[in-house]
Amino acid sequence: MTTPEPISRLIEEFAKLPGIGPKSAARLTFYLLRSGNAAENLADALTDMRQRIIFCTTCFNITEQNPCAICANPNREHSCICVVEEPLDVLAIERTGGFKGVYHVLGGALNPLEGVMAEDLKISELLVRLRGGKVEEVILATNPNLEGDATAMYLQRQIHSLSIRTTRLARGLPMGGDLEYADEVTLTRAFEGRREM
Amino acid sequence: MTTPEPISRLIEEFAKLPGIGPKSAARLTFYLLRSGNAAENLADALTDMRQRIIFCTTCFNITEQNPCAICANPNREHSCICVVEEPLDVLAIERTGGFKGVYHVLGGALNPLEGVMAEDLKISELLVRLRGGKVEEVILATNPNLEGDATAMYLQRQIHSLSIRTTRLARGLPMGGDLEYADEVTLTRAFEGRREM
Repeated sequence: MTTPEPISRLIEEFAKLPGIGPKSAARLTFYLLRSGNAAENLADALTDMRQRIIFCTTCFNITEQNPCAICANPNREHSCICVVEEPLDVLAIERTGGFKGVYHVLGGALNPLEGVMAEDLKISELLVRLRGGKVEEVILATNPNLEGDATAMYLQRQIHSLSIRTTRLARGLPMGGDLEYADEVTLTRAFEGRREM
Repeated sequence: MTTPEPISRLIEEFAKLPGIGPKSAARLTFYLLRSGNAAENLADALTDMRQRIIFCTTCFNITEQNPCAICANPNREHSCICVVEEPLDVLAIERTGGFKGVYHVLGGALNPLEGVMAEDLKISELLVRLRGGKVEEVILATNPNLEGDATAMYLQRQIHSLSIRTTRLARGLPMGGDLEYADEVTLTRAFEGRREM
């Protein structure tokens, strides 16, 4: 006996997802086989997401209407754009409740090794927004890793000629962290960025 | 901004699956959002599986036709039934190519702590098959763990009165294993089950 085709097909589809290997994919498939309507619910949720979620044509964040709720909100500071890699980053920043500006979602970070070049990201769209002339500050909030830093450097060079204030999120020790377990780079950055009390 | 409802719904559905926490669920969802038709393919595969896969009413293994290919095969030894917990176990045994009998899939193992009792498994269906009078051997191939052993003990007691030969898979050192890393129970079982060379 071999695995029935619908089973092996579902295992294959699961195994394509990030962080799911062939064993986990098989486990998920056989779990769904036994678990009432979980498979239907998941299939419905997938279809629903694909049908209802679009990208805002201004900031490229995910939304159900275009423009998105943030871009359409007159109470946000449209003169301050926070540039992030992913929609999840917007959610994280919104959770702080402290940022009143608007966003620009690049859709990733520069990664030449994996074939992600400047034209694969929403960089030209960002520059169009900046050339509109109403933006006073760009906050580069790409991830604090190699790709994120490279993307921020690249953007900073592009924005430089427009003479718009360009900032980058602070580096330092994370809250609740333990100094003795901090890595060298974090600790070095924390020293570089030290402030008067 | 809060997460759009279709997104949070898909995150919730993913998070219900075994081994997927809320963070992985969000990562999978945002991956599918960006990845062409992977979401459609997954939704199709799920629907397809639910529509085409049924359980064999003889052995309760998964199949596309009833009875399944193994139960319907006249070349298999229908006098020897191998009892396993899950359809995945059937696949593993079939891969060895060495077993010529038929199967009975219990659909799990006894686990009173998680509320899995004898009536939740296909045990009465197994006893009906055994009382048919044509079975000469039952191989109890439940998992070599606490729940699997308890299930095998329970079955053995039920089958005892039918005076059918009842066996259990051998315990011992796994192939390719390293004696010094074997746990105590495995090593004890390997000594108990030692054979003349």
